[in-house]
Amino acid sequence: MPKISQKGQRMPASPIRKLTPFADKAKLDGKKVYHLNIGQPDIETPEGMLNAIKTIDFKVWAYTPSEGTLSYRKKLTEYYNKLGYNITPENIIVTTGGSEAITIAMMSCLDDGDEVIIPEPFYANYNGFANQTDVVVKPILSYIDNGFALPPISEFEKLITPKTKAIIICNPNNPTGYLYSREELEALKELALKYDLYLFSDEAYREFCYDGRTFISPMHLDGLDENVIVMDTVSKRYSACGARLGCLITKNKAVIAAGLKFAQARLSPGMVEQIAGEAAVDTPDEYFTAVNTEYTKRRDTLVNALNKIDGVYCPNPGGAFYVVAKFPIDNADKFCQWMLESFSHENQTVMMAPATGFYSTPGAGTNEVRMAYVLNNDDLNKAMECLAEGLRTYPGRV
Amino acid sequence: MPKISQKGQRMPASPIRKLTPFADKAKLDGKKVYHLNIGQPDIETPEGMLNAIKTIDFKVWAYTPSEGTLSYRKKLTEYYNKLGYNITPENIIVTTGGSEAITIAMMSCLDDGDEVIIPEPFYANYNGFANQTDVVVKPILSYIDNGFALPPISEFEKLITPKTKAIIICNPNNPTGYLYSREELEALKELALKYDLYLFSDEAYREFCYDGRTFISPMHLDGLDENVIVMDTVSKRYSACGARLGCLITKNKAVIAAGLKFAQARLSPGMVEQIAGEAAVDTPDEYFTAVNTEYTKRRDTLVNALNKIDGVYCPNPGGAFYVVAKFPIDNADKFCQWMLESFSHENQTVMMAPATGFYSTPGAGTNEVRMAYVLNNDDLNKAMECLAEGLRTYPGRV
Ligand SMILES: Cc1ncc(COP(=O)(O)O)c(C=O)c1O
Ligand SMILES: Cc1ncc(COP(=O)(O)O)c(C=O)c1O
Repeated sequence: MPKISQKGQRMPASPIRKLTPFADKAKLDGKKVYHLNIGQPDIETPEGMLNAIKTIDFKVWAYTPSEGTLSYRKKLTEYYNKLGYNITPENIIVTTGGSEAITIAMMSCLDDGDEVIIPEPFYANYNGFANQTDVVVKPILSYIDNGFALPPISEFEKLITPKTKAIIICNPNNPTGYLYSREELEALKELALKYDLYLFSDEAYREFCYDGRTFISPMHLDGLDENVIVMDTVSKRYSACGARLGCLITKNKAVIAAGLKFAQARLSPGMVEQIAGEAAVDTPDEYFTAVNTEYTKRRDTLVNALNKIDGVYCPNPGGAFYVVAKFPIDNADKFCQWMLESFSHENQTVMMAPATGFYSTPGAGTNEVRMAYVLNNDDLNKAMECLAEGLRTYPGRV
Repeated sequence: MPKISQKGQRMPASPIRKLTPFADKAKLDGKKVYHLNIGQPDIETPEGMLNAIKTIDFKVWAYTPSEGTLSYRKKLTEYYNKLGYNITPENIIVTTGGSEAITIAMMSCLDDGDEVIIPEPFYANYNGFANQTDVVVKPILSYIDNGFALPPISEFEKLITPKTKAIIICNPNNPTGYLYSREELEALKELALKYDLYLFSDEAYREFCYDGRTFISPMHLDGLDENVIVMDTVSKRYSACGARLGCLITKNKAVIAAGLKFAQARLSPGMVEQIAGEAAVDTPDEYFTAVNTEYTKRRDTLVNALNKIDGVYCPNPGGAFYVVAKFPIDNADKFCQWMLESFSHENQTVMMAPATGFYSTPGAGTNEVRMAYVLNNDDLNKAMECLAEGLRTYPGRV
């Protein structure tokens, strides 16, 4: 029997799914499980986007150009230029989700053994994509005690070697919710220019900034055109995760040319999705206002409830829809599993993602947990009640 | 300015698109261009599949499980078991097109530097996927003079090294249209078992077999369960190329487990597509009968017309919707470009794909051209008239 690849063996399993068998078991046992583990919002997809699907009128469901239809790229240009990105359709490659934008960016810019610096905790699948493309992730710790702010630039410089080719930031951040300031981005810009590095900007959560804060992208900074690669997606923006529609944006023509060759090999992004994505750009502002109001309320509910629990600390993040909290526990993996396997409160329990899966430094984040506030306020309150009770009775409490 | 990767530099451009600028120019000059270069059928997508899109009734366009919805995998199982594959939903990972099935199969089974043997000419993007995954393609020539039949097994054995991990076949073949016989597959089976190799079976054109021939898959052979990996797609089967929906099938549990980790990293295949794909399985038999009748007619038109042209030879293939023909020319790349740039007959010309792009042995296929019969009979006839005239007047005729 032929063996699977070492790459396949090394490939990390998804940290947000590894407890799924325990959750399934809990449900079989009749427990209600509140899912705070995944980034699948319950928010409705904009009507205009769904209507665009329902009213398709083609006879042949055909390939589109590998870089995406011109019509969709023009519409996206409108969207991005309102944000001040100052791009043209030629700066865009439409991708199958933000996920593919990340892999195409990595393959176009990085070779086997090249190093990419990522502040951690970070979006866990970067590890998977790096394994896939033989890229080496160099994590740099950020700390819960200052809300997971950007680590000092001097810490980045310590990690830089001749193999260092890129920095990845995710802004607002998954898993921490941290929103980078203009100053932090300016500091990264200096670093990228000084060492001739790519700055990959994962902006999946761009739309979700709270308390009147504004989102700043590296695309807003002068003099960084050749270095910045934006990896974007409609998944969270329009609660359209199942559309698998994203894009890669860069003003660096060589990267577009290389990226296009990878895009051509896989032929085409989805056709119906691009039609829907085009309609989505016309989503009225009220949709986003309502969604942000809802998320702000949920964040406040969650963060307040968490900080009221004895021994818990949770910073109040400026964006996205995740928080990372510190618990008075021995081990987050064990705790999260115990909550599903051995605990119930009024026949209910909570599923969370141990933060360890978002760190690549061994031992980091052992007492931290990520929660996504993708449930309504009532459910969040009930989940927090459960969690408080769980933390009170957990045998591994410290 | 940071440099693009060597992988990006090495990545081959799509051979079927490289003449596109010349085609665009020809159109600007007012010429009508018959596109025989691409595998985008003009056949209508089944109504049931399109209706499934128009009647979606969800509010949240959500991720599906990374391996695909159970409901779609069950329906696929029904489809494959009618063909005698004898599988369960657990043997399937739903992918973003056949393209992703190929990359996931490669990453799960092959490491950097591992070798895969592919009879050539072969689907050109295998080169791109191999570059992407650092796999080495070992081509093995098949010849137009025997219709591109499977090369003798002794030729395969000459190429086998300790690094050889897999054989890829595409059946019916793109670009040659060749349909493998049961004997040829049995021979490959013995080889795979003797050397403990994976047998990757790309079955994108399974539905398109002519003259009453039957399609045989390695899935039909006994004792090969751990070796066979089928890479499939709805693109051609239902003329739904823009759906980006495919799957990987194997009874090898370790490969499914590894593949699932790659699938989890990219989160999910498309949701609407899986709904449509499920409906597609119920496409009435008459649809396929009509499509096959149409393709048979076109193939006959094309092959007859080609063989009537002085100095041209085109075998009559048993499947898919491509032919590779030999022309009395110096160089297919030059000829195909010349047809677009410098030739016109009654203000019309033909775009074809030079076969060189489908070979990886340097110099092979220089006088061969691939044509897809994705146009109606009238257009095919006109295209052949043009081609005959072009071949008559081409300055590089030999
Ligand atoms: C930070 C980040 N980037 C990228 C993605 C990929 O999303 P998708 O492939 O659905 O666009 C996600 C999804 O959760 C994410 O959280
Ligand atoms: C032989 C073969 N395999 C795989 C594919 C990939 O198709 P898709 O990604 O559209 O499923 C194609 C497309 O032309 C093909 O010809």
